[in-house]
Amino acid sequence: MSNTHDDQSAILLVHCRDQRGLISAVTEFLSRHGGNIIDLDQHVDAIRGIFFMRVEWHLDRFALPRHEIGDAFAAEIAGPFDMHWRLHFSDDRPRMAILCSRLSHCLFDLLARCQSAEWNVDVPVIISNHPDLRSVAERFNIPFEHVPVSAGNKPEAEQRQLELLEHHAVDLVVLARYMQILSPTFIGHYPERIINIHHSFLPAFAGARPYHAAHERGVKVIGATSHYVTPELDAGPIIEQDVARVTHKDSVQDLVRQGRDLETVVLSRAVWKHLQRKVLCYDNRTVVFG
Amino acid sequence: MSNTHDDQSAILLVHCRDQRGLISAVTEFLSRHGGNIIDLDQHVDAIRGIFFMRVEWHLDRFALPRHEIGDAFAAEIAGPFDMHWRLHFSDDRPRMAILCSRLSHCLFDLLARCQSAEWNVDVPVIISNHPDLRSVAERFNIPFEHVPVSAGNKPEAEQRQLELLEHHAVDLVVLARYMQILSPTFIGHYPERIINIHHSFLPAFAGARPYHAAHERGVKVIGATSHYVTPELDAGPIIEQDVARVTHKDSVQDLVRQGRDLETVVLSRAVWKHLQRKVLCYDNRTVVFG
Amino acid sequence: MSNTHDDQSAILLVHCRDQRGLISAVTEFLSRHGGNIIDLDQHVDAIRGIFFMRVEWHLDRFALPRHEIGDAFAAEIAGPFDMHWRLHFSDDRPRMAILCSRLSHCLFDLLARCQSAEWNVDVPVIISNHPDLRSVAERFNIPFEHVPVSAGNKPEAEQRQLELLEHHAVDLVVLARYMQILSPTFIGHYPERIINIHHSFLPAFAGARPYHAAHERGVKVIGATSHYVTPELDAGPIIEQDVARVTHKDSVQDLVRQGRDLETVVLSRAVWKHLQRKVLCYDNRTVVFG
Amino acid sequence: MSNTHDDQSAILLVHCRDQRGLISAVTEFLSRHGGNIIDLDQHVDAIRGIFFMRVEWHLDRFALPRHEIGDAFAAEIAGPFDMHWRLHFSDDRPRMAILCSRLSHCLFDLLARCQSAEWNVDVPVIISNHPDLRSVAERFNIPFEHVPVSAGNKPEAEQRQLELLEHHAVDLVVLARYMQILSPTFIGHYPERIINIHHSFLPAFAGARPYHAAHERGVKVIGATSHYVTPELDAGPIIEQDVARVTHKDSVQDLVRQGRDLETVVLSRAVWKHLQRKVLCYDNRTVVFG
Repeated sequence: MSNTHDDQSAILLVHCRDQRGLISAVTEFLSRHGGNIIDLDQHVDAIRGIFFMRVEWHLDRFALPRHEIGDAFAAEIAGPFDMHWRLHFSDDRPRMAILCSRLSHCLFDLLARCQSAEWNVDVPVIISNHPDLRSVAERFNIPFEHVPVSAGNKPEAEQRQLELLEHHAVDLVVLARYMQILSPTFIGHYPERIINIHHSFLPAFAGARPYHAAHERGVKVIGATSHYVTPELDAGPIIEQDVARVTHKDSVQDLVRQGRDLETVVLSRAVWKHLQRKVLCYDNRTVVFG
Repeated sequence: MSNTHDDQSAILLVHCRDQRGLISAVTEFLSRHGGNIIDLDQHVDAIRGIFFMRVEWHLDRFALPRHEIGDAFAAEIAGPFDMHWRLHFSDDRPRMAILCSRLSHCLFDLLARCQSAEWNVDVPVIISNHPDLRSVAERFNIPFEHVPVSAGNKPEAEQRQLELLEHHAVDLVVLARYMQILSPTFIGHYPERIINIHHSFLPAFAGARPYHAAHERGVKVIGATSHYVTPELDAGPIIEQDVARVTHKDSVQDLVRQGRDLETVVLSRAVWKHLQRKVLCYDNRTVVFG
Repeated sequence: MSNTHDDQSAILLVHCRDQRGLISAVTEFLSRHGGNIIDLDQHVDAIRGIFFMRVEWHLDRFALPRHEIGDAFAAEIAGPFDMHWRLHFSDDRPRMAILCSRLSHCLFDLLARCQSAEWNVDVPVIISNHPDLRSVAERFNIPFEHVPVSAGNKPEAEQRQLELLEHHAVDLVVLARYMQILSPTFIGHYPERIINIHHSFLPAFAGARPYHAAHERGVKVIGATSHYVTPELDAGPIIEQDVARVTHKDSVQDLVRQGRDLETVVLSRAVWKHLQRKVLCYDNRTVVFG
Repeated sequence: MSNTHDDQSAILLVHCRDQRGLISAVTEFLSRHGGNIIDLDQHVDAIRGIFFMRVEWHLDRFALPRHEIGDAFAAEIAGPFDMHWRLHFSDDRPRMAILCSRLSHCLFDLLARCQSAEWNVDVPVIISNHPDLRSVAERFNIPFEHVPVSAGNKPEAEQRQLELLEHHAVDLVVLARYMQILSPTFIGHYPERIINIHHSFLPAFAGARPYHAAHERGVKVIGATSHYVTPELDAGPIIEQDVARVTHKDSVQDLVRQGRDLETVVLSRAVWKHLQRKVLCYDNRTVVFG
């Protein structure tokens, strides 16, 4: 949308049981307070009977000050309709931590987007279980924390990671080919706020070494999947997927090389959608507004 | 959307000058009369200051009978806001004529979709400037009219075509690789209701023999474009485009062969969007709702 | 390639253990007899140490008559190098049977391609376990055989199908959304000559109801896979795959609708490659030359 | 191919008038000297009557030392057949200069690929007509030369650029969104060795501000094109193109944002193909081997 970078808009994300009059109630609320709607998108899951909505409006002539919007909406609309809702402002600047291991392609891409002001986001810390990518972090002047992870020290390592995330007041954790499985405890600290990139078209080839498995099966298309992390491995809500054509000429190494570009672009699209507040989760699925 | 085939829904298409309270007014109108919204999509062209909306709602508990909806909407909403609007019902069954020449691939595809009940549409007549495809029409039991067109008889031929379209009460004209240029007079009878398929990625390679031109230029991607026909050749509002990768190995004949599949699918997607009442035109552009 | 429709070319498909001098030996053989190579493609599976080659050459000034080529090649080249090989001529006209059930989209598409002379192939018989598509077959003047299949009569039904295939001297069997599982016995009669379309991106969602499974998982991309049939269900060598993007707005029925177009195009591309003699199988994988 | 990174292979690129026995002659030459072919690809432009070939073979048991291969091939094969040819070794490490202006996305991507050893290439110098990207160059420890270009100083600026390229012994020049038009004189120093990225699907929207033009036309697909630079603006041989779908919701700024990812990936694929010695030019077109 043309106006999503506008500093003076508010974004409301809503979901609730489907019922008559929902859109009318929300838009009448905004209209009554002088809000000019920039973008409205809604979805009804007819099978589950759930209503989803994202609405964005200009703040410049909106009658309510920012800090009163939530209370007013809760009292007048969300309460009576029993809605779940979140309110964001377009000039919020989320704090995004990156976890990585040894592969640099996603890390470089994410940092280039942040550095070039393509994304309105801060990266306060990069955490890795290997020291290899310290020089990349240093190039972008971002603190790099090496937290080794082994079979024996996993709980302590995760505790250290959580302390770092809390210390840096992190809102969002991006796993940029971070090759470790996170515990349910860790995941529970950042529900729907840890984004992973899996190097296959899930649910095909979940688990380790998916390019080897894809080559073995002789597929003609490879894929990458970005999803929120949940306790069940590679089974969280999918945000974005894409694919590339391959042929019999492509070795495993060729799949790995082409897969890097896929992983990079799929992860960055998923993070971008999240940063724009366009993703809603429910029932292990996502609504990703356009 | 899951409910577009429901027999009992109404669809309202609206556009007007952008202003506050538009969505609220429309949805409040529907809510007040007991309409449950199935799907709502809107768009604001911020540069031109135009608002577009498509809303679809269930009729089963809607308080207004079908024949009163338009008048009520005009009086209560469209008038005060100076809206352009159209009202459709999901069980309308449009009448679609097909014009073709000698190539059968789009014709076969369109007829298969109508015949298999994939589309809720009637095809009362097929008109061609060549007799070659008569047997295809006969296979599908559809009247075939051969109207030869030459440099000398164009006005008379178009007059005959228009009589046939009027006789068959046609709502929509699909040019399925019909290789003749239509006059502004003809086009004026069916504004925004003639859909063409051009065998290139417009605006590249407008005009005749686009595959030859694409081959000559050495492109690595070929395309097809479906658009509403306007008096300026190949310059009408684009509804749908898609592309396919090609290589140096592909001859002109190979491009033609691969292009056929592209043309077929791009045309059918455009017609499908039109039949679903998801396309709005303005300023030689389209809004195509998702 | 520009010349694949030439009536006067020969095609040699070869595979054997990789070793020095293979290409040189084959091309020297052709050159020595006056063959002008139109197209040569080769592939080495470095891990398995297997060499694959497809070479096509003009027959017009080739010194050997057609019926002597095979013997000469066997004696001079294939024998010494211990090659597997097949010889085809571009004006061969394969006989292709189609098996279907109730869904017409792939059947319509295949018949339109055969009827319009896009493909140089005969369809001597259409066999179905349901009578629904008889009218489609009749439109194209092709014999339609209804062979009901039930839990109790499977061996007899397959026996009847095999008799029909033999009676019609069929070279290739295409399963155009034929919804029955074939027995290993049946498959053994047509090794690497039965092509199926599976309505998912294999190996994701093998088995029944893949669109339901894809919707349940919340994928953002759906796929279709065409493969040779082997005794293990949905696990044969993949010839072609492709995908389409979907969103949270798409219901299961929408996936089915979009999937139809995918299935149609993926199956037709796979059959086209087979008909061009561009597919080689080994080790449950395919080499598909460009 | 699996073996393109092997340090011990040679690559021969050939084109000449099409005639009988070409493949046989080349492969017999390699076979006779003990070369094991890793990859062979050929193409015949049937209309122009030109033959193209790329062949790669292992050097480890090849009888000729590297410095004698060219002379032997010229004497035995290239001379008699009147071939144009080039010989490369897979462990050559080309020297690639990057020219840029103010946009960083392609520059970051190219440098990340070089830095991460994905590409076997040196970047001895980055030249820009603006100082903005000096910090990016410094992050990667690459000399940055600011050569301002104005309407009045173009010849002097190009002279300075040429001196820098010569001083750094550059083999290949990549224009990473370098926004200046190069003179025919400049281009003449690096024929088929200057690669540009144009931010549209050429030939549509050549020239300046293509995203504005694409938005104005209302296209549903945008593209990017990488090509060798020739004196005619945006008309050189196309190496690679790709596209992305857009909708009415996308503003010009949205097209620019999505276009950045396209430009990045299309330019990097083109450079990769060039570095692999897989591109041959003729008649303002390319052969790009797979």
